[in-house]
Amino acid sequence: MIKPRLISLLFSSCVRAGCAGQRWWLVGLAANLFVLGNGVAVGYDELVEKHVFEMDGYTTQGGERIPSLKVGWEAYGTLNEAKDNVILITHYFSGTSHAAGRYSKDDAAPGYWDAIIGPGKPLDTDEYYIIASDTLVNLNAKDPKVITTGPATLNPETGEPWGLDFPVVTIGDFVEVQKALLENQGIGSLHAVMGASMGSLQAYEWASVYPERVERVIPVIGSGAANAYLIGWLDAWAAPIKVDPDWNGGDYYKAEPPTKGLEESLKLITLQANHWQWANDTYGREWAEEGVDPASSLEAQFLFEKVLDDVATDRAKVADANHLLYLVKANQLFVTGEGENAEAGLAAIEAPTLMIYSEDDLVFFPALVRQTIETIAADGTPVEEVVLEGKRGHLDGVLSIEQAGETIREFLDRDV
Amino acid sequence: MIKPRLISLLFSSCVRAGCAGQRWWLVGLAANLFVLGNGVAVGYDELVEKHVFEMDGYTTQGGERIPSLKVGWEAYGTLNEAKDNVILITHYFSGTSHAAGRYSKDDAAPGYWDAIIGPGKPLDTDEYYIIASDTLVNLNAKDPKVITTGPATLNPETGEPWGLDFPVVTIGDFVEVQKALLENQGIGSLHAVMGASMGSLQAYEWASVYPERVERVIPVIGSGAANAYLIGWLDAWAAPIKVDPDWNGGDYYKAEPPTKGLEESLKLITLQANHWQWANDTYGREWAEEGVDPASSLEAQFLFEKVLDDVATDRAKVADANHLLYLVKANQLFVTGEGENAEAGLAAIEAPTLMIYSEDDLVFFPALVRQTIETIAADGTPVEEVVLEGKRGHLDGVLSIEQAGETIREFLDRDV
Repeated sequence: MIKPRLISLLFSSCVRAGCAGQRWWLVGLAANLFVLGNGVAVGYDELVEKHVFEMDGYTTQGGERIPSLKVGWEAYGTLNEAKDNVILITHYFSGTSHAAGRYSKDDAAPGYWDAIIGPGKPLDTDEYYIIASDTLVNLNAKDPKVITTGPATLNPETGEPWGLDFPVVTIGDFVEVQKALLENQGIGSLHAVMGASMGSLQAYEWASVYPERVERVIPVIGSGAANAYLIGWLDAWAAPIKVDPDWNGGDYYKAEPPTKGLEESLKLITLQANHWQWANDTYGREWAEEGVDPASSLEAQFLFEKVLDDVATDRAKVADANHLLYLVKANQLFVTGEGENAEAGLAAIEAPTLMIYSEDDLVFFPALVRQTIETIAADGTPVEEVVLEGKRGHLDGVLSIEQAGETIREFLDRDV
Repeated sequence: MIKPRLISLLFSSCVRAGCAGQRWWLVGLAANLFVLGNGVAVGYDELVEKHVFEMDGYTTQGGERIPSLKVGWEAYGTLNEAKDNVILITHYFSGTSHAAGRYSKDDAAPGYWDAIIGPGKPLDTDEYYIIASDTLVNLNAKDPKVITTGPATLNPETGEPWGLDFPVVTIGDFVEVQKALLENQGIGSLHAVMGASMGSLQAYEWASVYPERVERVIPVIGSGAANAYLIGWLDAWAAPIKVDPDWNGGDYYKAEPPTKGLEESLKLITLQANHWQWANDTYGREWAEEGVDPASSLEAQFLFEKVLDDVATDRAKVADANHLLYLVKANQLFVTGEGENAEAGLAAIEAPTLMIYSEDDLVFFPALVRQTIETIAADGTPVEEVVLEGKRGHLDGVLSIEQAGETIREFLDRDV
């Protein structure tokens, strides 16, 4: 049932990775059996553990002190003795460090890039040590699996949640905390850094500020700086929270949080990260409730409105409104590298770059991604690209990433 | 100074229009002198008057009765004796009947399509009687120049503003009121109907439901039905109003209106109707306030954020929040023609169609406009198109309409 070619590939990848554990081979075999039997690829099959990284204080790029800091992280694969097989995954705006695998066998879904992370997969856990961490001010502060530090965290100096006293943090701060996390494990360089959307901003930043530490960079669905239009949309994402009286100037941790405003913010993000091809083809003009014509009253809905409401309600349960505002600010402030000159910041990237994007992206428009490619490539830095096909717009960078799988595999395998 | 060719054109257009008033010729001359002298075209030069059309009751397509109804209208040019030189202009979501000219010489700006409406212009007021009316539930209910009927209007049966007791109205209702307005002037058929965005929906509806009355149709930046994604965005536009506690379930006419929520709704509309090319090129990453780095606090803004705030504040002064919600509903409910079958509705259009759109439209996506073109053209209805160039996305349908000017002129002049 298993084709000979496939078995030899499994063995050869086992050889390449040094066969740190025979179990990887077996997992790979099981995974590939699954592919053969069902036509569906599976990813990382080990149960994933969430770890905590703590710092005894961190000074932000803005010069403010956070006396104690924690972020969650998880890893797939094994760190080799040389500690040179590390791929860092940086997460998107509403994402977490959960890039692959399941915490328990009962989890409804695996991490977001499970399609490309696992034994024998493009980000091959037989070969690489793949690590991902929750950012500071992570959106999903109430998710028990997310560990982050931000406005919802207790300020040790007051014993109260920070609220808006928490300092402004930047994509650069996210990178600095990741660097400390890696150094804590003795990791000095990265085989690659890869991230989608806000994760791509972190990837640009890593490659620009620490060119000697980053051997390859894979930015997905992102461009090299936040510009006026994105800054404006980020502001609009934040707005419903501020309109909600329960937001109370950010001081709501002892009262009702601004759930309605947060839900509407998350709805905007859901909409903009998607595309009409998916929405129209999937939901058309169907009614939310059988027999209730949307024309019958101002309140009566179309199905797609209800779907957006339900998604927003669900996402809001684990999200914190102030964290969303801080993420908005971090993204608005982003320019690759130090200072405000995006061209110089992108020119400082020397690592071979694999750019992955979608022509239908309504958050980071494809023309701006292509400008970023040109700027990185201008001084001779090699840049390859994969254009994803799909109906999900921006989200295809998460949902359709397997289309880029073989290109990613070759890119990671190639010597630099 | 005036070239002979131009004078002869002016005379010939005077002859074509029957020279109902010699003043038109003089205005045309002045206008064209201005073109020659400054290289800038001017539009309608007569002072514009706002008129009121009243109905003694109107039954909506949903079967509900509005006992008394008023809408404002204005006209440019002169209705000929045969009453067969009429062009109806239908307005966009946040627009009004003020399509051309000025109410007083001191007006800061003329009506929105002044570039193409006027003596000698493509919509030539020497030849055509161009009429535009405010829709029901017009957004700008507080604008002294707007006359509309909607939730902010007094319900004669209670003496109080209608609020959410006002019935749901549709694009079809807007068309029915326009039909009554035209019939009141003895007008039975239209040389053309032309409208942008929500105005294009009215144009489709006119041409589909009254094919015998519409000789030509010019839909600008719009497609033939609201689909899921647009329905979702319209819902998102409405959301900040509903989050604002001052909205109070629509009952705010004796208290503070939901200004903050309304402003955020209008900001979303402003953003989506624009495009990154304009925002980025115009505002880049400039700071709102000199010396106040947006990184310095959560509140500190980039210039584009402040511009959006200022525009929204300004627009909210004359807008009514409930009217916005009713417009959202009317647009969500839109399918060309009677019933839910957009293909049948568009197929019923027999009038030659000139479709004008932008490849950068983020409200009515170009692929959906092209689908609409195909559907109208499928049974042999002639459809021409003009693709506008610009940096304003959807808004180029208003701001860059003069690019289509000569095509519009020829389209209107051609016999059908």
